[in-house]
Amino acid sequence: MSTVKVSNGANISSIEVEDGVSLLEAISKIKDMHVDASCGGKGTCGKCKVKILKGSLANPGISEKKYLSAKELENGYRLSCMVPVTGNIDVLVNGINEKSQILTAHNGFTGKLNPLVKKKYLTLVKPSLEDQRSDLSRVLNAIQLVNPEVSLSQRQNIPAILRKADYSVTAVFSSDSLLGIEEGNTENLNYGIAIDIGTTTIAAYLLNFNSGETIDTISGLNSQKIFGADVISRIEYSMQGVGNLKLLQEKILTQVSDLCIFLAERNNISRKNIYSIILAGNTTMLHLFYGIDPAGIAVAPFIPGFLGVMSLPSSVFKDFPLSCIIFSLPSISGYVGADIVAGILATKMHERDELSLLIDIGTNGEIVFGNKEKLYCCSTAAGPAFEGAHISCGLGGIPGAVDSVELSDGQITCSTIGNERAIGICGSGIIDIVAVLLKSGLVDFTGRILDNDEVDGKSKTFLEEMLINRGEPAFLVTKASESGEGKEVVFTQKDIREVQLAKAAISAGILSLLNKAGRDLAEIEHVFIAGGFGSYISKKSAADIGLIPASLLDKTESVGNTAGLGALSCSLSQEDYYTTREIVKKTEYVELSSDSFFNMKYMEEMVFPEY
Amino acid sequence: MSTVKVSNGANISSIEVEDGVSLLEAISKIKDMHVDASCGGKGTCGKCKVKILKGSLANPGISEKKYLSAKELENGYRLSCMVPVTGNIDVLVNGINEKSQILTAHNGFTGKLNPLVKKKYLTLVKPSLEDQRSDLSRVLNAIQLVNPEVSLSQRQNIPAILRKADYSVTAVFSSDSLLGIEEGNTENLNYGIAIDIGTTTIAAYLLNFNSGETIDTISGLNSQKIFGADVISRIEYSMQGVGNLKLLQEKILTQVSDLCIFLAERNNISRKNIYSIILAGNTTMLHLFYGIDPAGIAVAPFIPGFLGVMSLPSSVFKDFPLSCIIFSLPSISGYVGADIVAGILATKMHERDELSLLIDIGTNGEIVFGNKEKLYCCSTAAGPAFEGAHISCGLGGIPGAVDSVELSDGQITCSTIGNERAIGICGSGIIDIVAVLLKSGLVDFTGRILDNDEVDGKSKTFLEEMLINRGEPAFLVTKASESGEGKEVVFTQKDIREVQLAKAAISAGILSLLNKAGRDLAEIEHVFIAGGFGSYISKKSAADIGLIPASLLDKTESVGNTAGLGALSCSLSQEDYYTTREIVKKTEYVELSSDSFFNMKYMEEMVFPEY
Repeated sequence: MSTVKVSNGANISSIEVEDGVSLLEAISKIKDMHVDASCGGKGTCGKCKVKILKGSLANPGISEKKYLSAKELENGYRLSCMVPVTGNIDVLVNGINEKSQILTAHNGFTGKLNPLVKKKYLTLVKPSLEDQRSDLSRVLNAIQLVNPEVSLSQRQNIPAILRKADYSVTAVFSSDSLLGIEEGNTENLNYGIAIDIGTTTIAAYLLNFNSGETIDTISGLNSQKIFGADVISRIEYSMQGVGNLKLLQEKILTQVSDLCIFLAERNNISRKNIYSIILAGNTTMLHLFYGIDPAGIAVAPFIPGFLGVMSLPSSVFKDFPLSCIIFSLPSISGYVGADIVAGILATKMHERDELSLLIDIGTNGEIVFGNKEKLYCCSTAAGPAFEGAHISCGLGGIPGAVDSVELSDGQITCSTIGNERAIGICGSGIIDIVAVLLKSGLVDFTGRILDNDEVDGKSKTFLEEMLINRGEPAFLVTKASESGEGKEVVFTQKDIREVQLAKAAISAGILSLLNKAGRDLAEIEHVFIAGGFGSYISKKSAADIGLIPASLLDKTESVGNTAGLGALSCSLSQEDYYTTREIVKKTEYVELSSDSFFNMKYMEEMVFPEY
Repeated sequence: MSTVKVSNGANISSIEVEDGVSLLEAISKIKDMHVDASCGGKGTCGKCKVKILKGSLANPGISEKKYLSAKELENGYRLSCMVPVTGNIDVLVNGINEKSQILTAHNGFTGKLNPLVKKKYLTLVKPSLEDQRSDLSRVLNAIQLVNPEVSLSQRQNIPAILRKADYSVTAVFSSDSLLGIEEGNTENLNYGIAIDIGTTTIAAYLLNFNSGETIDTISGLNSQKIFGADVISRIEYSMQGVGNLKLLQEKILTQVSDLCIFLAERNNISRKNIYSIILAGNTTMLHLFYGIDPAGIAVAPFIPGFLGVMSLPSSVFKDFPLSCIIFSLPSISGYVGADIVAGILATKMHERDELSLLIDIGTNGEIVFGNKEKLYCCSTAAGPAFEGAHISCGLGGIPGAVDSVELSDGQITCSTIGNERAIGICGSGIIDIVAVLLKSGLVDFTGRILDNDEVDGKSKTFLEEMLINRGEPAFLVTKASESGEGKEVVFTQKDIREVQLAKAAISAGILSLLNKAGRDLAEIEHVFIAGGFGSYISKKSAADIGLIPASLLDKTESVGNTAGLGALSCSLSQEDYYTTREIVKKTEYVELSSDSFFNMKYMEEMVFPEY
C-alpha cells in the first residue's frame, strides 16, 4: 500500500491504495478531486495530466511523450493514467471538479415520502404452546405483508436473530418482500442509493429513507470507457471474445459497488444499512450490468435481450447486506432505456395535460414528446459531440474548459470553468462558438467557414484575427501563450461538421415525433433539456444554431440529470416506482432508421439558421 | 475407480465407484440390490453383512469382529459399511429388497394431468423494424404468461439461444415462471421428480410430465442417519457445533441430488430434462434440507423457523439444469410436516363429506382426523418401534425379517420376507407377535409376560416351549440353529413395553383429536394407515393389540407412502399443488404435550385389550 496525497491548490486529501493501481484511479477515488480522462485511461486522450510534487516514478512511456511536451515532462507533469503507483506520491491536480459535482445536482425530491424499503421495530409476542407460529410467520404477521417473498438466506437467519434479540427486532421490508430482520431497534438507520449508469458518466445519490433527503452525490466516468466510448463500440467489444461480456459486467459491478461503498463511507454510514440500489441507465448499459448479451441492439432491427425491471442478488456486491435489493427501472426499446423512463417521470410530462418535449443529450440523444394521453420517443445518433468527443479540443465539463463564448464589438470573450486558463472546450462552449460564428457571418448556413474574400467589414477583421489553418480552416479560441497547457485551443471546420450532424439528428428527431403524433411545434408548452450537458448550455445559443426551435426558446428549461432524479424518486416513492411501468405502457417508440420522414428532415436540418 | 460386481443370487449388476467409498455405498447405488444398514453405516448394527466372492480387502476391524462370527469371517462375510473399496470386488448380497421397493409403490396418479412444468414449442415471429419486442418479450408473449418470474441466468441465456435456434425454441414454464428456453422442439422430453424425505427413509419418484406416468421409483436410507436416528437427536447434533447444520444440509442435498441423478441415468433420461423436484418431508427434515436452524422445534413450545412453501435454486444440485425448480410443500407445525399435508392430499380426506382418520406411522406417528369442513392433526412420540428400532431383534422390511406370525393349535408359525431364514423381526411381525402373545394368554393386558404358574392348559405347554430368560423374560421366535445368522431371534419383555408405549401414544392421539372435534369413534368412515409400515401390517393384529380401535377394523385400509404420493400428485397437478395451501389453512394442529385429556388417555391406553 502506498499513500497518494493530492492537492488541487485549495485542499489536500490523501488516499491509501494498493501498489500497481494507476495514479488516475487513485485520484478518482478521492472526494472533490478530479482528473479528466475521456479516453478512459488508455493514454490516448492526453487529458489526465497532473503534476508530480514528490515521489519517484517509472520513466514516461511513448504515450506520455506524445501528449506532454519535453518542458512539461521536465516540470514533473505526467499522464496520471499511465503512472502506476509504486510508492508514496504527492500530486497536484487541476482543481475541484465543481461542474462534475453539479452534474449530480437535482431539484430535490418533493413528492410524498414512501420509500421502497421501510423499517418497523417489532416487540413480538413470544412463542408459547398456545402460540406456535413459526419464527417467520411471527415476523410476517407483525408487518402484515401478504405472501411476501423472503430469501432463503433471510429464512436461515431469522430463527437465530429472533432468539438472540429476545423477539425485539426491526423488520426491513418492501411492498412485497421481507428483506431481513435486525436485532433491536434500528429504525433510524435506513438508506438507499439511486444510480444512473450513463455510457460516459455514472452518477450516484445517497438517500436517507427516513427523511427523504439526498445526503450526498458522486459521479465518475464509466469504467467501461476503456472498452469503447459509445454504446456500439462497447457492444462490439462484448462480441469480440468469450469472456468479454463478463469482463464488462465485472467492471461495472465493481464500479457501482465502489461508488456505493464510497458514498457510505464518506458519510459515516454503514453499508449494512443500505437497503436498496435502484438503477437507471440506457438499455445497453443495463444489459452489460446484468451480463446479458446486448449484441442484438447493435444491428437492425435493434433487439434487446430484455426491457423490463431486472434485479440482482446483493451478494454480487462484496460486503453488501443480504437484505439489500438491487434492481433497475424498465426500458422502452434498445435505444430508449430506463434513463429516459426515469427522465419522463422526473419531468412529469406523463401526467401533464399540455404537450412537452424532453431532449436528453448524453452520449446518445433521446427525445420524448407528448402528454398524459400518449408519449412518443426516439433515439438519434446525435453522437457525443456535445460531450466534447470527436471535437478536436473537446473536453467534458472540467476546470479550464471553455464553457461560454460571447461576441461583442467584434471581439469574442470566453469564460472557463473555474476561471482557469483554457485547456479545451466543453459542450456549452461548443454551442456558443458555433452560434457566434454563424451570427458574425464567418460560417454560413451550410456550415462552411468562409474565405477571407467572402466577408467584409468588422467580420473581416475578426476573421483575419481568428482564422488559422491547421490542415483545415480553424478558429483560434485561445492562443498557446494564454492557454493552460501551452497549446492553442482551436475549433475546426471538422468540429463544425460534427456539431452540424448532431444538431440535425436532434432537430429531425423532434420533427419526426411531432409528425408521428400529428402535432405542431407551436403546441409544445415545455421543452426540457436533460443530461449533464443540458445543465450548462445557453438556451439562446442552442436556439441560434437550430438545436432547439427558436420559437420554443422561452418554454425551454434545463432539468439536469433527470435519469438520476427519476431513479431517486423511485427510491423514495413506491408510487413513482410503479408509475415507471405505466410510463413504458404509455410510450410508443418510433424507430427512426426506417422512417423516411426522419431521413428527409435529417438532410434538411443539416443546415444552420441563416443570419 | 474400481468395479464392484454384485450378485443377489438371481441377478448380477456392476458399478464403477471411486476407491475409498464403502462397499455399502457402492451396493446401495445399484438398482434392485439392497443391503440393510439401520445404523446408517456406522458399524454398530451389524446388519449390512455381505459375502465377498472375489477381491482383496483390508483385514476386518473391531466392529466386524463383534458382529461376525469367526466362521462367517472365514467364509468371506464382511460388514459392507466397514469395507472401503480399494480394487475390483465381486460380492453376494441377500437378495432383491422387494419390500423396500414396495415402500415406494403407490396407487398411481389418477387425477387430471396438469403438470407443474409445461413445455411449448414456439416458432417465433422473427424481429423486424416493425416488431422490435425484446427477446424476452417475444418468448413471454408466445406463452402468454402475465408478469412471470424469469431468473437472471435464463435472461442471460435467452438472446443467444433464440439466435442459435433461429427463433424455433421450446419454452419451459410453470404457472408463474419462464424456466428456460431450449433450441428446437424438445416437447417430448419433460420429466420431474417427487421426493419424500423421511427421517429414516427417502423415497423418490421419477415422473413423465407428458404422460403422467411414474417411470421409476427408488428409496434409500436417509444419509443423515449417522447423525441420529430420530428428529430430536438430529436437531441436537445440529446444535452441537458450528457447521453441523451445514454438514447435515450438505448430506441431504447430496443424497437427494444423487437419487435424482441415479433415477435419471438408469432410465436413460438426461438430467437436463428434469424440470422439477418437489419435496415432502417432516418439518425438521425440511429445515435441514434448507439449512434453517431447527433448534426451536426440539424444545417447548416447539417453534419451527418456517412452515410455508420453500425453494432452492437448482444450482445447489451439481449438473442440474438452471431451468429446474426445487421446492417443498407447506407444513402445518413443527411436528406435522409437509409429508402429512401430502398424505391428506393423497387420501383426499380434505374433500370427503365423511370423517376419516389418517395414521402415518414412521419414525414419528402423526394422526389426522376430520373431513372437508375441518381437519385436526397431532403428532405423537410413537417412536420408531414399528420400524424395528429399540426392539432387540428389530429390523426394517428386509429379506429374512419375520413379517408375519400366526398361532394355530398352540403352535406359532412365522413367515419371513423372501422366505429366507429368519434374522430378525420387522414392524408387521412385531405387531403379530404381540397379538399372538396376548390372545394366547402368555402376556396379560398390562403387558407383563406371565410366570409359568400363572397359565395352564395349552398355553402352559406353549409358554414352556417359548419362554426363555435373556436377563429378562423373552420369547424365542427362531432357534439359533434355524436362523439365518446362527443367532436366536427373540422378543423380550422390554420389546413388549416399547410396543405398549407406541400403541398408547397413537391410540391416545386418536382419542384426543376426536375429543377436540367433539366426535365419536363410531362416526369414522375411513381409517388410512400410511407409512412404509402401514403397507404390511395385519390390520387384524393391529386391532388385536389396540393400535387401531377394533370397531374400525373393517374401515381400515393401508395406503402406503402417502407423503410420496402427495408430492407426486402435486408434481403432476397444479391444482393439487395449490390445494396443499388450502389443506394447511383447514387443518388445526392440536398440541398434545400440554393436553391433559391426551395425558390421561395415554395412561389409560397403555394397557392392551383383555382376552
